[in-house]
Amino acid sequence: MREFGESCGLIGVTGMPGEAVGLVAEGLHSMQHRGQESAGMLVNTSQGLDLYKKEGLVSEALADLPSWWRKEGIETAIGHTRYGTYGGKGVLNAQPILVDMAGRAVGIAHNGTICNAPAIKAELQREGVIFQSRTDSEMVLHLMARHLASTGYEVERALELSLRKLEGAFCFLLLGPDGMIAVRDPLGFRPLSLGAMPDGGWAVASETISFPACGAEYVREVLPGEMLVLPYGGGEPRSHCFCTEDGSFDQSRPLSQCIFEHVYFARPGSYVFGDSVYEVRLAMGAQLAREAPVDCDMVMPVPDSGTFAALGFSRQLGITFGMGFTRNHYVGRTFIDPASARRAAMVMRKLQPIPEALRDKSVCVVEDSIVRGTTSTARIRALREAGAREVHMRVSCPPHRFGCYFGIDFPERTTLVAYDRTEEEISGILGLDSLAYLSREGMLSCVTAHSPDDYCTACFEGCYPVQPPRPDEIPR
Amino acid sequence: MREFGESCGLIGVTGMPGEAVGLVAEGLHSMQHRGQESAGMLVNTSQGLDLYKKEGLVSEALADLPSWWRKEGIETAIGHTRYGTYGGKGVLNAQPILVDMAGRAVGIAHNGTICNAPAIKAELQREGVIFQSRTDSEMVLHLMARHLASTGYEVERALELSLRKLEGAFCFLLLGPDGMIAVRDPLGFRPLSLGAMPDGGWAVASETISFPACGAEYVREVLPGEMLVLPYGGGEPRSHCFCTEDGSFDQSRPLSQCIFEHVYFARPGSYVFGDSVYEVRLAMGAQLAREAPVDCDMVMPVPDSGTFAALGFSRQLGITFGMGFTRNHYVGRTFIDPASARRAAMVMRKLQPIPEALRDKSVCVVEDSIVRGTTSTARIRALREAGAREVHMRVSCPPHRFGCYFGIDFPERTTLVAYDRTEEEISGILGLDSLAYLSREGMLSCVTAHSPDDYCTACFEGCYPVQPPRPDEIPR
Amino acid sequence: MREFGESCGLIGVTGMPGEAVGLVAEGLHSMQHRGQESAGMLVNTSQGLDLYKKEGLVSEALADLPSWWRKEGIETAIGHTRYGTYGGKGVLNAQPILVDMAGRAVGIAHNGTICNAPAIKAELQREGVIFQSRTDSEMVLHLMARHLASTGYEVERALELSLRKLEGAFCFLLLGPDGMIAVRDPLGFRPLSLGAMPDGGWAVASETISFPACGAEYVREVLPGEMLVLPYGGGEPRSHCFCTEDGSFDQSRPLSQCIFEHVYFARPGSYVFGDSVYEVRLAMGAQLAREAPVDCDMVMPVPDSGTFAALGFSRQLGITFGMGFTRNHYVGRTFIDPASARRAAMVMRKLQPIPEALRDKSVCVVEDSIVRGTTSTARIRALREAGAREVHMRVSCPPHRFGCYFGIDFPERTTLVAYDRTEEEISGILGLDSLAYLSREGMLSCVTAHSPDDYCTACFEGCYPVQPPRPDEIPR
Amino acid sequence: MREFGESCGLIGVTGMPGEAVGLVAEGLHSMQHRGQESAGMLVNTSQGLDLYKKEGLVSEALADLPSWWRKEGIETAIGHTRYGTYGGKGVLNAQPILVDMAGRAVGIAHNGTICNAPAIKAELQREGVIFQSRTDSEMVLHLMARHLASTGYEVERALELSLRKLEGAFCFLLLGPDGMIAVRDPLGFRPLSLGAMPDGGWAVASETISFPACGAEYVREVLPGEMLVLPYGGGEPRSHCFCTEDGSFDQSRPLSQCIFEHVYFARPGSYVFGDSVYEVRLAMGAQLAREAPVDCDMVMPVPDSGTFAALGFSRQLGITFGMGFTRNHYVGRTFIDPASARRAAMVMRKLQPIPEALRDKSVCVVEDSIVRGTTSTARIRALREAGAREVHMRVSCPPHRFGCYFGIDFPERTTLVAYDRTEEEISGILGLDSLAYLSREGMLSCVTAHSPDDYCTACFEGCYPVQPPRPDEIPR
Repeated sequence: MREFGESCGLIGVTGMPGEAVGLVAEGLHSMQHRGQESAGMLVNTSQGLDLYKKEGLVSEALADLPSWWRKEGIETAIGHTRYGTYGGKGVLNAQPILVDMAGRAVGIAHNGTICNAPAIKAELQREGVIFQSRTDSEMVLHLMARHLASTGYEVERALELSLRKLEGAFCFLLLGPDGMIAVRDPLGFRPLSLGAMPDGGWAVASETISFPACGAEYVREVLPGEMLVLPYGGGEPRSHCFCTEDGSFDQSRPLSQCIFEHVYFARPGSYVFGDSVYEVRLAMGAQLAREAPVDCDMVMPVPDSGTFAALGFSRQLGITFGMGFTRNHYVGRTFIDPASARRAAMVMRKLQPIPEALRDKSVCVVEDSIVRGTTSTARIRALREAGAREVHMRVSCPPHRFGCYFGIDFPERTTLVAYDRTEEEISGILGLDSLAYLSREGMLSCVTAHSPDDYCTACFEGCYPVQPPRPDEIPR
Repeated sequence: MREFGESCGLIGVTGMPGEAVGLVAEGLHSMQHRGQESAGMLVNTSQGLDLYKKEGLVSEALADLPSWWRKEGIETAIGHTRYGTYGGKGVLNAQPILVDMAGRAVGIAHNGTICNAPAIKAELQREGVIFQSRTDSEMVLHLMARHLASTGYEVERALELSLRKLEGAFCFLLLGPDGMIAVRDPLGFRPLSLGAMPDGGWAVASETISFPACGAEYVREVLPGEMLVLPYGGGEPRSHCFCTEDGSFDQSRPLSQCIFEHVYFARPGSYVFGDSVYEVRLAMGAQLAREAPVDCDMVMPVPDSGTFAALGFSRQLGITFGMGFTRNHYVGRTFIDPASARRAAMVMRKLQPIPEALRDKSVCVVEDSIVRGTTSTARIRALREAGAREVHMRVSCPPHRFGCYFGIDFPERTTLVAYDRTEEEISGILGLDSLAYLSREGMLSCVTAHSPDDYCTACFEGCYPVQPPRPDEIPR
Repeated sequence: MREFGESCGLIGVTGMPGEAVGLVAEGLHSMQHRGQESAGMLVNTSQGLDLYKKEGLVSEALADLPSWWRKEGIETAIGHTRYGTYGGKGVLNAQPILVDMAGRAVGIAHNGTICNAPAIKAELQREGVIFQSRTDSEMVLHLMARHLASTGYEVERALELSLRKLEGAFCFLLLGPDGMIAVRDPLGFRPLSLGAMPDGGWAVASETISFPACGAEYVREVLPGEMLVLPYGGGEPRSHCFCTEDGSFDQSRPLSQCIFEHVYFARPGSYVFGDSVYEVRLAMGAQLAREAPVDCDMVMPVPDSGTFAALGFSRQLGITFGMGFTRNHYVGRTFIDPASARRAAMVMRKLQPIPEALRDKSVCVVEDSIVRGTTSTARIRALREAGAREVHMRVSCPPHRFGCYFGIDFPERTTLVAYDRTEEEISGILGLDSLAYLSREGMLSCVTAHSPDDYCTACFEGCYPVQPPRPDEIPR
Repeated sequence: MREFGESCGLIGVTGMPGEAVGLVAEGLHSMQHRGQESAGMLVNTSQGLDLYKKEGLVSEALADLPSWWRKEGIETAIGHTRYGTYGGKGVLNAQPILVDMAGRAVGIAHNGTICNAPAIKAELQREGVIFQSRTDSEMVLHLMARHLASTGYEVERALELSLRKLEGAFCFLLLGPDGMIAVRDPLGFRPLSLGAMPDGGWAVASETISFPACGAEYVREVLPGEMLVLPYGGGEPRSHCFCTEDGSFDQSRPLSQCIFEHVYFARPGSYVFGDSVYEVRLAMGAQLAREAPVDCDMVMPVPDSGTFAALGFSRQLGITFGMGFTRNHYVGRTFIDPASARRAAMVMRKLQPIPEALRDKSVCVVEDSIVRGTTSTARIRALREAGAREVHMRVSCPPHRFGCYFGIDFPERTTLVAYDRTEEEISGILGLDSLAYLSREGMLSCVTAHSPDDYCTACFEGCYPVQPPRPDEIPR
């Protein structure tokens, strides 16, 4: 778990009296894959803003929302679900965060990583600011408070001035004095979309999969650099660009949208960056088949994340698509010491191989990505134990060789299996008959809504669109 | 939840000192789909038999096994996971059951339904027997106790005499004085298999999917009518038929193996009744395609249970296989009132449609079975909301029109959507463009290890191989 | 924890529509001191008898009573709270027990120990009866079931015939076909009282302290040998003696009422055996002062159980009554290893000495009883550490030198500090300046409602009024 | 719950390698009466300061301390237990608080109320400071951070400068860069004492009752105005007065020690403000007897808080001391609606009257204080229901007629039963035969270590030693 940034799920709903709390909870539930550590909700009540957050999955963490909220007819709420773990201290780093800012309650939730946070924090600390959490959200609130007096206590203006100082990946949802505010960084690292609720309400969410879950219709993406204010009680949104002087949007600047959202992170039912995740994954599988075909009896995914790339791969080659694993939908702690398991199958609690699907077959496994390689190694061994004659693997993105500083939590670079290794070496370590990765160009050819230059591929190549913090700046 | 029978998962391990408890827990976990209400484990310790059971999923229910078991080097254990719910009373009907029988501890776990249980219970009650649970297991223990004195306190012999009185579906695992005993009814309604552990130990389980999970190798099915004794500490199993005088197996008698295990209940990685569930499901899909082909753009399953039939269906027709739903792997209570949901998608928390996969498409959904039809109706509506132009459905078994009295818990017959309705009527109710079911003969043509006459199809046709209890005999 | 008998709290309420469940729960709460292991409730609903029981204190165990009970307007309920622990298996031995007896639901709860249970159980087992718990309640139900056919299925008559076989201590509450039945053994070992509810309802409870808690007025004791039937819906109780042929009460037979209920077990606000526990304890303290006066600066109790004897003691001698301990009302696990505590005070988490009350003082501690002596030793040491110059102890009953087989759970006889030791030796072991116990005669002179011969003093002298089971008969 | 101040328990231990965590937990447990809402612990590890806090009682809240702390051999820890409740948000207002202050970790815990907090907070907010909790601790940390740069990043000096701005009641424990720091406000509102651990370690705690619990010996009070630094690893404490220029203590200034700690709040085994709580309470009872004697049959306390005053009262008058209530040591939610209870006894779940102690008696109940009067009214009614002929009450302090702004949480002034009422009126409301309160002078005559002028009696008379905040300044 990196300290100053996280993959998270954000959603806000406004203009839905009496329904906002339930809809935000359902929306969070549909984005549970974006964060399982904690969940929180911030609501606008007749008593002012109120906050509830707790460790655990959405369905547990939000099971005991304050009962008095129910009587309030709450019409605006924002929710956050967080990835990562600090052990017992989790709730102190959970979001949203609610503060008293010169008598004004302001609450905020964040998805992303702000690269110059160490520098900004150091500057704030020199001025006497103290930090109670390791969240970027807290830092932004401090910046806002600095600007408050000079802006005549205009919260939105103070937010704008603060945002201009930030470099890196960020999507924010705030509850301010006049409405819910949605913000997306100028390079558009993370997705954020606007949806319309019936009767004039609005929804904003990290992924559009949450729109049907909460009854919203997709409208458009929140634009890179946009500050979008959705007034309490409904009504027309106000929008402008927070990083230009006149508030106009600069279309010429290339973006840095996270291609890994398409590869792995987002759910296939979502639109991100203007493309359907489903369609992009099918296309990546097809492109992978064109680049690195394989002669085998069956193409199979690592379900569920590799399923759509595997479908595209098999269709392109005309090779049978099949399922070599059956998934156990129940999770929970193991009752044996995995280290002492006699067979690979004994540690395969989530995905169990189907011997009849594999026996004497040559199979090609389509994966979305390989990180450390340890799980893949166990799976490949289990496939061979179950009788597979040949095991090939195709990966629907290039090898991961670099860290991400923009919101995805990869492990230390040196623990990546592709770090400093060729594909042949990796293939040998994983115990494969053959291995191939999708090329960068091939991968980027699968997105259609933006130019290939509008995506960040730093985790594959190390060319960071924003200067990441120096290692010594990253507190552990 | 019917009162005197249940679908459950059974597993026992013997001859694995210090490992049996962990292996049984892992084996139960792999059969969690067979029962989520409660889990229990019965072990053979140096202090005699000991029992632990609790409501909940395996990983929760067995989280607090007695700590002293760890020091015991336990080598024999049986586990049970139970389907159904009685609310707060659940643990009183959980299994295994352990009793003191004339100073001998005997413990038992059961999967199935004994049809003449009401009559036997009535007879026992006339003799003064009282019942503390609604389990057939308790009844069998009472029968055994009746026979104990007359058999010179031979537990195995008393069990044999008791088993001969039973009609219906049953698999039992017992811990008796000399070893673990596995029993399967003469008609073979429910599956039960024998596996070999390393170093002379043995495993017996409802489904073979649990064998790799606990490190066992599949050996064979426990035979219909077999009583198999696996001695404590390992050693050669003793086997005979409990329903013939000389203990020999009568091969001529037709069996009544539950075809619905292949259609829906068992996991595709399992062998049941000598066939691979995986292969049978693929074959059912292919046969369904031959019987009721459809002209459409995409064949899609209701994941995960319909996946393999859908694969077989699409391969046979040469129509693209695709995924129109994305599955949310997180469950938990809903935060909105489903009745007030504006759109079908708002109640689709587990399976969310992927609009891009569906828009303007004609899709054929392959289901394994339709029971009440309410869930199917919501799913079909959600597919249309997401843009599907035509929605066809193919079901990989005949219409369910009758109750099961042999271990599967169907709802009241009159609540089945196919009760008293034609396929056309059902199609209209579900809102489909077309609907077809697999024929009985087609279905039975897909199993290969036994003759088609060796399967029970009563839930489709009402021809019960054993007289079910009269409705007034079934206590509620 | 002895296996076939327990100290428990019983309460039943009838004729209180919509209130019975709450009143029984409150009544159990007021008798929580009689059992902390588990709590259970059996109710008479429109659907028949229903049972809920769970491990834990009343307030936790009954927190999740079935929600549908609330709509039932339940007017009759019985509750049980149980002492002792079997670890994880607790709920299997919890009470009440509910069984199906020839189609009739019968539920029962028990306080006491049946001495000939091993013999009866052995006989029942020879007839093929099996036992699922170690409770006497289950045995009584089996006996009833034996008699059911021969009595024309008259539950009350079958109960009566069963009770005649029992020797030892027992109070039962049952819900039968016509009403709630209260039973007390002919020797009257354990207390049981009848209370009147407003509007014709009735309450029966182990201790009268529960009557004000549930709104009842004390009427009288349930008589030794009485079977008292309180009809559902209210109405006149029916009473007779179950151990005489004509149902009349035999007043001449001496009783064996447990004097230790007065010494320690019952709460001072209760009436037991016709005497106020409060008054008896004061009288015991006064008698102790007459028998073994002491010259000291302050008389102090071990709160709270010794408080009233200490008051009587100090008043009789005219010596200042004081408190040398302050009680911490919060309990919970310790965070340090008591074995490594440097000072006695570090293990005194419940009772902390008050140095200012003790410094340079000669104090006389009044205790109700000493069992193993380990706790007393620590307390006496802590008093000296806190500055007490002399520590004397007076105990308001004779030395405990024998086991109880009638419902109180003393440890193994050989672990009693008074086993095979003189008062001087005990005084030395405890580190006292002087020690004296109340004499048997003195103790019995303090009860007034019955003759001294009507009390059991077996735990002091070993003269058991009923033959206890042989050690080899007591299953562990 | 007032927003900016709380009654709490503080304890810190240093110089006890491997033991500090356990000792602090035990110390908190012994001060559980000072706060039941949440508990927290801050420790000095090899990785820097680390914090754990959770809602609930000490034994629950600290049950899951981070397991890695155990391996650390932690030698310094501070703990806090908090009174009051904010519902679900509790943990956000729990203490200690740990912040990053210009790269330096500083943690703090607080007992008291800072009267000029609203003004200071307003000033800080004008400078852009934001607040995440309603604790004074957070405010002090902000003040310190302001002073950090100007003091060359000397944490102790920054603390000192910050403390000089504070008006009101405060005791702080901090973990700073060099050691544990204990601070007590110049008027000495709240108690704080120093204890010596074996082998050179130190303990500081709100009440000395925690010293035996954690193995410490009482040394002395932390002085009003003292900043006491106890170096990590043990060694000589450094002490000076933080409110004088030269650090010397000004003995001439009168103090404002909270007399209510002696009357009610502290435990009788503690020393506070140089006097034994036990002795002061006995003296208050005796003085009350001199001022307002009563002619009755029995003097009885409301246990346990009134016990010692009742003892002093009865001894002075020579009237029998007795117990009219028996205490139920088990707590938990009620199962009936108290509003619908037919009798007072039905709501008396903690204290149940003993009819035999009360019947036809004239009793005098000694209470430590009366706040709203509702509980007293129910108790007095229950005593009469139980048969008491006359019920008199004597209270061991003057009538409470004013709020406290220095750390005790009284309800709104207008809800106090003595607000705007004479003793006769109160007596009538409570249903008493007579009522008398101890006089202010009588009360102050019972403390001996300081002059009567050195105590705060504002809650009786409204003469606040420090200007309390204006009502409009107190955020709700």
